[in-house]
Amino acid sequence: MLKVPQHQVAGHEAGIGKLGPLVDESGRFYKPLQGDERGANEVAFYSSLSTNSGIPEHIQRFFPTYYGTQLVEASDGSGLLPHLVLEDLALGRVNPSIMDIKIGSRTWAPEASEKYIQKCLKKDRESSSLSLGFRISGLQIYRSKELGFWKPGKKAAQKLSTEEVKLVLRRFVSSNTLNDLDSRPDSAFASTVYGGSTGILSQLLELKAWFEDQTIFHLYSCSILVMFEKELALKGKNPGAQIKLIDFAHVYEGRGVIDHNFLGGLCSLIKFISEILTAPSECRTEATAKADQKNLTADNGVVADHKSHTASDNGVVADQKNLTASDNGVVADQKNLTTSKNDVVADQKNLTSSDNVVADHKNLTVSDNGVVADQKNLTVSDNGVLADQKNLTVSDNGVVAVRRSSLTDKWC
Amino acid sequence: MLKVPQHQVAGHEAGIGKLGPLVDESGRFYKPLQGDERGANEVAFYSSLSTNSGIPEHIQRFFPTYYGTQLVEASDGSGLLPHLVLEDLALGRVNPSIMDIKIGSRTWAPEASEKYIQKCLKKDRESSSLSLGFRISGLQIYRSKELGFWKPGKKAAQKLSTEEVKLVLRRFVSSNTLNDLDSRPDSAFASTVYGGSTGILSQLLELKAWFEDQTIFHLYSCSILVMFEKELALKGKNPGAQIKLIDFAHVYEGRGVIDHNFLGGLCSLIKFISEILTAPSECRTEATAKADQKNLTADNGVVADHKSHTASDNGVVADQKNLTASDNGVVADQKNLTTSKNDVVADQKNLTSSDNVVADHKNLTVSDNGVVADQKNLTVSDNGVLADQKNLTVSDNGVVAVRRSSLTDKWC
Repeated sequence: MLKVPQHQVAGHEAGIGKLGPLVDESGRFYKPLQGDERGANEVAFYSSLSTNSGIPEHIQRFFPTYYGTQLVEASDGSGLLPHLVLEDLALGRVNPSIMDIKIGSRTWAPEASEKYIQKCLKKDRESSSLSLGFRISGLQIYRSKELGFWKPGKKAAQKLSTEEVKLVLRRFVSSNTLNDLDSRPDSAFASTVYGGSTGILSQLLELKAWFEDQTIFHLYSCSILVMFEKELALKGKNPGAQIKLIDFAHVYEGRGVIDHNFLGGLCSLIKFISEILTAPSECRTEATAKADQKNLTADNGVVADHKSHTASDNGVVADQKNLTASDNGVVADQKNLTTSKNDVVADQKNLTSSDNVVADHKNLTVSDNGVVADQKNLTVSDNGVLADQKNLTVSDNGVVAVRRSSLTDKWC
Repeated sequence: MLKVPQHQVAGHEAGIGKLGPLVDESGRFYKPLQGDERGANEVAFYSSLSTNSGIPEHIQRFFPTYYGTQLVEASDGSGLLPHLVLEDLALGRVNPSIMDIKIGSRTWAPEASEKYIQKCLKKDRESSSLSLGFRISGLQIYRSKELGFWKPGKKAAQKLSTEEVKLVLRRFVSSNTLNDLDSRPDSAFASTVYGGSTGILSQLLELKAWFEDQTIFHLYSCSILVMFEKELALKGKNPGAQIKLIDFAHVYEGRGVIDHNFLGGLCSLIKFISEILTAPSECRTEATAKADQKNLTADNGVVADHKSHTASDNGVVADQKNLTASDNGVVADQKNLTTSKNDVVADQKNLTSSDNVVADHKNLTVSDNGVVADQKNLTVSDNGVLADQKNLTVSDNGVVAVRRSSLTDKWC
C-alpha cells in the first residue's frame, strides 16, 4: 500500500490532485518520473550509478539505493505513471530532523537551454545560492513530542540571509525546543551530530575529497540531505547523523573537468559547519544582535567578554579590562579609548567609532553607512534603515520585520 | 625613466595613444588607476593588504608589494595620471614564461550593477570560465633564443576548449621549441616547475587551504600569474616557479562567507596541474587525436599500449594482448572482440563500436553522434562535421581548420 511520505522537506508534495512521491512499507520511495528529459536523465544517472566504477564504494553509500523504475498509481489520481524506485531515506527514523541543501551557486549547466538558464539564474540570484554557494531548499527540526516539528515554508528557507543560514545550522543541532523567544540555539548536539569520525562534517569532507578529484559528473541542482534523530541524541545514543545526495535530473558529463560549482558550494557549507564545531556555544548572529553593549562588543561578529582577555586579528593579546587591540595593532586603553580601523580614536565610555563616524557609545551606534541610531531604542541595517530594537529587526536589504511574530518565531 | 613592460601577457597594453602599465628600472610597476570605482577599489584593497592581519604571512607573499599611488606621465601621452605603484613581477627575469589565469567561473559579484553582470556573464559563457572555472587571459611561452616567445592572441587564449587548455598547461612546461608540427609537448619541466615543495602546485595548494578558510575577501575577476624561466630549467637550475595574485578592481567583502567561486576555479586548475604531474609524458589531447590505431586505443582520453596490461575503470586488469575490460566489466578477447559501453561486441580486428554504432576499425571511426568516418582520411568532430585528418582538424563546435597552418601552429 503506497502512501505519502511523512518527512518530505523539499520538492513536490503529493496530495489530492498533486503529483508527488510515495513510499511503501518495505522501505521503498517512489518518485514520479518527470515526463521530459529530466526524468530520462535521472533514470540514466541512477542506472549508471551501480555499475559506474568511477565511484568508489565509500562514496556510493552517499547515493540512495536504486531499484529501477516501476509503473504505479500516481498520487494525484491520474492513473498509472512511471516512477523511480529508490531507497526510502527516512526508513527506520522516528522523528528525523532533516535539511535539504541544494549545492552550487549555479543550478544550471552551461549546456542547458537559454530559457532554463534564465529561469535558474533568477532563482539563484534571489535565493542564497549565489552568495553562499548553496541554499536550504527545505527543512524540519524536531522540537519535542508536544511541539512536533519546526518546519518553515520552503520559500522562506530558500531566501535566508547569510546570518540566518548560520543560525538555522545551529538550531538544527540545538536542544532548545525553539519556542522560547529569548533562547539562543545552544548547539548542544553539534559535537555528536556534526562532529566525530562518523559525523556530518566528516562525511562532507569525504565527499569534498572525491569532488576535488572526480571528473565524471557535474551535478547541477542536486541536494545534500542532512539527517539525524534528536531523540536519540537526547538519550546519549548514536543520533544516526547521515548525508545523502539526491535529485539528479540535471546531471551532465564532467568531460575531464571537476565539478567546481558543486565543490565550491560544498566547501562553503563545510566552513559554516566547522565554525559551529569550533565555537558551539557561541551564536554569532544572535549575539551580535543582542550583545549587551555594556559588557560585550562585537567586531567582525566575534563577541568578546571585555572582562577577560581578547586577541586582535593580528594576534596582539590585550587585557580587555584596560586595553584593546584594533585591526591594525594599535593598542588603546579600553577604559578610555578605542580605535577604529582607520585610527580614529574615541573615548570608549562615551564614544565609539565605526569607519569614520564617531558616536556616543552609551546612546548611539553607527551603521556601515554612517547612519547614527540610539542604541537603546533603535538598530540600523546595512543600508541605513532604522528599526526599534525592542520590536523590530532589519534584514540586510532593509526589510523591517516585527521581531516577535516574524523573524524571531521563524528563525530564532 | 618609465617604459612599457616587456612581459605583459594580459590586460591593457601601453602604446602610442594607448593607456597601459609602465615600469621603471628600480623594479616598480605603474598601473594606471581606472577612473571609476574600479580604481578606487583596487587602491583600497592594496592599502588594506599590508595592514590586514587576516592574511597570514605565507599568503601575503602571493600578493605584489604595494608602494602607494603616484602621479606619472601616462603611456598614452595624455599627461599626468594617478597610477598604482606595485612591485614589477617580471623584475630579474630574463625570458619568463608567463600565464595569466583569471580564476572563477563567475567574474561578477552578486552586488555588481545589472549592466556589468550581463556583460561579464556573456564573457564568462563565451570563454572557458563557465566550464572550467577559470580562463587563460593571456600567456607567453619562451621557446628559444632564435624563436623567442610563443604568444597567442588574448582572444584566442580565452576561448580555448578544455582539451586545448590542458594542452597549453603541458606546453607551458615542455622543452619542445613548439615549431615541430609533429612534436608532442614533453612536459619535461613538469616536475621542477609544477612539482616539488616549492613548485607551482605546492603554492596553489597553499592558496587553496587559505581560500577554504578565509571569509574576508571575495576576489572577482582576479588572476593568478604563473611564471618561471625555461632557460634556468634547461640548465638544471631553480627555474623560479612562482604564482602571484593580481587585479583587484572587483574585490568585495566576504562577510563571513568563503569565496566559493574563486575556490572552485582554483581546485579545477589544481586538478589539471596534478594530472600533468601524475602523467607528465602522456599528452591526452594530442594522443587522443593522433593515436596510432594499430597499437593504441583511447577510451575516455586514456591511452593504453595494447601490448601491455591495462586496467578498466572498475579495476579489472586484463592482459591487453588478449583481453580488454569494458566499463561494465565484460571482458573481451582483444584480438577478436571489444565491447562497447552498452555491450555491443565488435571484432577488434575489423570493427570498433562507439555507443551503438559499429564500425570497421581499420577504416572507420565513429563520432559521439554516430557519424562514421574513414579513419585514414577523415576525423569527426563531436557534432559530426567531417574533416580530412591529414589536412584538417575540427573543433568542438564544428569549425574546420587547416591543421598545419592554424590549430597545430597555434596550439600543438
